[in-house]
Amino acid sequence: MSHKGEMLYEGKAKQVFATEKADEVVVRFKDDATAFNAQKRGQVDKKGEMNNAITTLIFKYLNQKGVPTHFIKQLDEREQLVKKVNIIPLEVVVRNYSAGSMAKRLGLEEGIKSPVTIFDICYKKDELGDPLINDYHAIFLGAATEQELKEMYALARKINDILTELFDKVNIILVDFKIELGKTSDGKIILADEISPDTCRLWDKDTKKKLDKDRFRRDLGEVTEAYVEIYNRLKTILE
Amino acid sequence: MSHKGEMLYEGKAKQVFATEKADEVVVRFKDDATAFNAQKRGQVDKKGEMNNAITTLIFKYLNQKGVPTHFIKQLDEREQLVKKVNIIPLEVVVRNYSAGSMAKRLGLEEGIKSPVTIFDICYKKDELGDPLINDYHAIFLGAATEQELKEMYALARKINDILTELFDKVNIILVDFKIELGKTSDGKIILADEISPDTCRLWDKDTKKKLDKDRFRRDLGEVTEAYVEIYNRLKTILE
Repeated sequence: MSHKGEMLYEGKAKQVFATEKADEVVVRFKDDATAFNAQKRGQVDKKGEMNNAITTLIFKYLNQKGVPTHFIKQLDEREQLVKKVNIIPLEVVVRNYSAGSMAKRLGLEEGIKSPVTIFDICYKKDELGDPLINDYHAIFLGAATEQELKEMYALARKINDILTELFDKVNIILVDFKIELGKTSDGKIILADEISPDTCRLWDKDTKKKLDKDRFRRDLGEVTEAYVEIYNRLKTILE
Repeated sequence: MSHKGEMLYEGKAKQVFATEKADEVVVRFKDDATAFNAQKRGQVDKKGEMNNAITTLIFKYLNQKGVPTHFIKQLDEREQLVKKVNIIPLEVVVRNYSAGSMAKRLGLEEGIKSPVTIFDICYKKDELGDPLINDYHAIFLGAATEQELKEMYALARKINDILTELFDKVNIILVDFKIELGKTSDGKIILADEISPDTCRLWDKDTKKKLDKDRFRRDLGEVTEAYVEIYNRLKTILE
């Protein structure tokens, strides 16, 4: 089972390893946590395991619902086998409520429901701080074509519809989330990376308690507990 | 002629006065110059006169070409009579080449020609630093509807086509420019504010010498001379 080869890449929260197959890689989820473009660093106990488990549940569910993802199978507590893709250097952020960087940028309170689903794209470039850009910039940069952007937004919208409904069933508001998309060797755009409390804002519907990485970013405490809570709630309806 | 009433508004570079008619106001162009969200302040000799004269030439020309503007007539060296509008709180920036804040944001050199015309929208809010936003944010903020945004981009594109050709005739590259649009009392969207070296990047085609406000922003000297140069070149083919 553990056909793990050399490490191809190490990110802030994950490592990627080669396998014997050219088009498959192993992703290993770490407990390392960073925020604010890695200016804040820490460790969150069990985070790697929880994000692996949560991403597994969510990507399996999305696959069932017809969303193409890189996910193949979970290997162990910290690792999953995925299709190798070329990551498109754009983060797509989908927002249902004001929060985080958008609330700050627009001078708004957090938690205001938007009348339209909001899509932000950010240019993945650490040294620039992953700036918000627009479609024209993305095309200028050669990060994606107009047609690819259309596909990316359509996928993001579909994922939002599916996950908003999913989280609603376990009494959680999907405030916003970030996805990364990749291109397979035959040019197909599929969901890659992860979907977890590291990449979503998830608020308990009744108490509005934050059950996501904002607990780490803002030193709110009970970080591990929040990740475990999300996993436990999802487990009641998935698998 | 001088039916100027009370001052309704004072901006960084202009003042606006009431007239006897409810739907007309007088705009007075000042020599004051500011940059970087007013962190840099100064005076540019003759700037008010030049921007009044240049905006007059350009807005008259755009009116002839079928672009609706607020311009009615020039009153004197510093003043023009315009239609009163409600300014839409979005700056539309049109870019043909990388420069300024976009070059910085994307980590690019200045002066790279874009394969597509780039449109940025910024939320006009001094205390937020006029941040770059996208269409979804604009709708969320209630700054413009989807339909209004479409109209705004169409107008901006038309203005860019007309002005790129116009400046080309006087051996100048229109690198980028910013416009502000307003709504008349009957809801029509028209071009307002000004189009001048304060709001455009204009480079001599042969020498690439900057003939715009970047001379002030970047302490390049010969600021007044640049504004006069633009006026003189436009005068050779307009009026």
